[in-house]
Amino acid sequence: MAKRLIPTLNRVLVEKIVPPSKTTAGILLPEKSSKLNSGKVVAVGPGLRGEAGGNHIPVAVKEGDTVLLPEYGGTQVKLGEKEYHLYRDEDILGTLHD
Amino acid sequence: MAKRLIPTLNRVLVEKIVPPSKTTAGILLPEKSSKLNSGKVVAVGPGLRGEAGGNHIPVAVKEGDTVLLPEYGGTQVKLGEKEYHLYRDEDILGTLHD
Amino acid sequence: MAKRLIPTLNRVLVEKIVPPSKTTAGILLPEKSSKLNSGKVVAVGPGLRGEAGGNHIPVAVKEGDTVLLPEYGGTQVKLGEKEYHLYRDEDILGTLHD
Amino acid sequence: MAKRLIPTLNRVLVEKIVPPSKTTAGILLPEKSSKLNSGKVVAVGPGLRGEAGGNHIPVAVKEGDTVLLPEYGGTQVKLGEKEYHLYRDEDILGTLHD
Amino acid sequence: MAKRLIPTLNRVLVEKIVPPSKTTAGILLPEKSSKLNSGKVVAVGPGLRGEAGGNHIPVAVKEGDTVLLPEYGGTQVKLGEKEYHLYRDEDILGTLHD
Amino acid sequence: MAKRLIPTLNRVLVEKIVPPSKTTAGILLPEKSSKLNSGKVVAVGPGLRGEAGGNHIPVAVKEGDTVLLPEYGGTQVKLGEKEYHLYRDEDILGTLHD
Amino acid sequence: MAKRLIPTLNRVLVEKIVPPSKTTAGILLPEKSSKLNSGKVVAVGPGLRGEAGGNHIPVAVKEGDTVLLPEYGGTQVKLGEKEYHLYRDEDILGTLHD
Repeated sequence: MAKRLIPTLNRVLVEKIVPPSKTTAGILLPEKSSKLNSGKVVAVGPGLRGEAGGNHIPVAVKEGDTVLLPEYGGTQVKLGEKEYHLYRDEDILGTLHD
Repeated sequence: MAKRLIPTLNRVLVEKIVPPSKTTAGILLPEKSSKLNSGKVVAVGPGLRGEAGGNHIPVAVKEGDTVLLPEYGGTQVKLGEKEYHLYRDEDILGTLHD
Repeated sequence: MAKRLIPTLNRVLVEKIVPPSKTTAGILLPEKSSKLNSGKVVAVGPGLRGEAGGNHIPVAVKEGDTVLLPEYGGTQVKLGEKEYHLYRDEDILGTLHD
Repeated sequence: MAKRLIPTLNRVLVEKIVPPSKTTAGILLPEKSSKLNSGKVVAVGPGLRGEAGGNHIPVAVKEGDTVLLPEYGGTQVKLGEKEYHLYRDEDILGTLHD
Repeated sequence: MAKRLIPTLNRVLVEKIVPPSKTTAGILLPEKSSKLNSGKVVAVGPGLRGEAGGNHIPVAVKEGDTVLLPEYGGTQVKLGEKEYHLYRDEDILGTLHD
Repeated sequence: MAKRLIPTLNRVLVEKIVPPSKTTAGILLPEKSSKLNSGKVVAVGPGLRGEAGGNHIPVAVKEGDTVLLPEYGGTQVKLGEKEYHLYRDEDILGTLHD
Repeated sequence: MAKRLIPTLNRVLVEKIVPPSKTTAGILLPEKSSKLNSGKVVAVGPGLRGEAGGNHIPVAVKEGDTVLLPEYGGTQVKLGEKEYHLYRDEDILGTLHD
């Protein structure tokens, strides 16, 4: 059975969104239109701890956010059958909204 | 449909201004006059978080600013048909005014 | 007789979980399913000391946690017959839960 | 028309002083006497922001100052017909006075 | 006559424990069982000074502790006939207890 | 006419003391006796600014001090006919007294 | 005449103790017994300045201390006929006591 991962500190667990390589009607999409590297935030850590020791610096994104990911970086993690990636919150470029 | 991007932390989303390569009257401009690397700020992040955890250090530029960009750096992002660039606010050289 | 180790500062003593290479029924598992690099936290240090000198920044994991470990890093330690690994808490990727 | 540039953070916009290569009377000056690399401060940024987020660390020079510039460094900027250089205030060596 | 050394700042003076290469009954021990790199803390410094200037950040180990040492590092010191090693407290891996 | 330079931040303007290569009586001195690299402090900056933004960290030396200079480093500056050197105050080794 | 040097910041002026290469009775000592690299503290600086600007972080050793020196590092200074070495206080390993 797949385990659940709670990231440490300011780490963010992301499930990458694989862009469709053809439209629902079956037309093949040119490579250029599938370039946006995005994902869904599955879990976030509690944040880095400040020097004072008692406080957490909140993580820049939250569970459920659709995020723009950097081209490189991130640590691949496999939980059960699914593949995820871990990022430090400062490496996530932004959140995507419709 | 194009998605909207809200940058994280102190990131700034910029749409580069492509300088005209000829005047409106059709006269070709010499290469030198098109050198200023500028752009329009489309969106800014909430700012870096201070060590205290609760505060944000405000971003140095704001939406709508015309900014002078460094010659190198920035991350290319494509949203829908349009191409943008992401910069850390400390990499933006200044704001341009008429 | 095996000695007990109390880690210093933000170090974490971990006993790695060796994934079974065949099922209890004796069927050999393909290499891919044994990939998750995890361990059990056996002991944690008191945390790094803040600049003020009197306070400790709490360690991000606690004794008994099942943790996801980075692919590289960690210091091998042998206590009695058993082999353990020491990690800085910031290098532990997250905690695993059923 | 030339745009006006307001530098970000602790950046300083400088117009370099080109030393005359001959005296007003037309006598050619030896290379050695034209060595001082100086400029006029045209605009300064608001200063770096402190960790607290609300304050600015004032810039070390001010508009109108004649400054001694380092031999290397600075970013060339062309506004209209004129050429300027941007420096971080900590790279400016000092102010020159008659 | 041997001098006594009081370490500066967060330095720790350690006398390494040389593991017996045979048992008391004279049986040679295999190389593997002598692998634990440990030592006895002979003296500790007052700790690093905090930025405030008046305070010391306490050293992570104390005189008399049996400590686990890193495989590399440490500065060899000879006082009289005996050989010691100096470590920064952050390089000591943990304390050993029966 | 020679300009006066006020250094920025923690910079120190020094006029190097050229040791006499022969005594006043005309006896040539051996190379060894001219080795001390010292200078006279001509001007000092206001000091680095602290993070709070309003305060200056005072410069470690003052105008008129005779200082011991490091063997390497320093920026050569020519003001009028005279040659000076700029140092960061932390690079000056000490002050010399009779 | 020899000048007196007052070190800046956290610098420490040390006169190295040259270990006797033979005993007072004239017996040559083996190389091993002359290995301890120690010195006498001749002068200390006021200490590094804290960020607040008004305070000094006290130097870890004081005038008259016999100190254990690192094998490498230190800046050689010649004052009059005597040779000294300058160290940053954090590079001094400890103080030696009978």
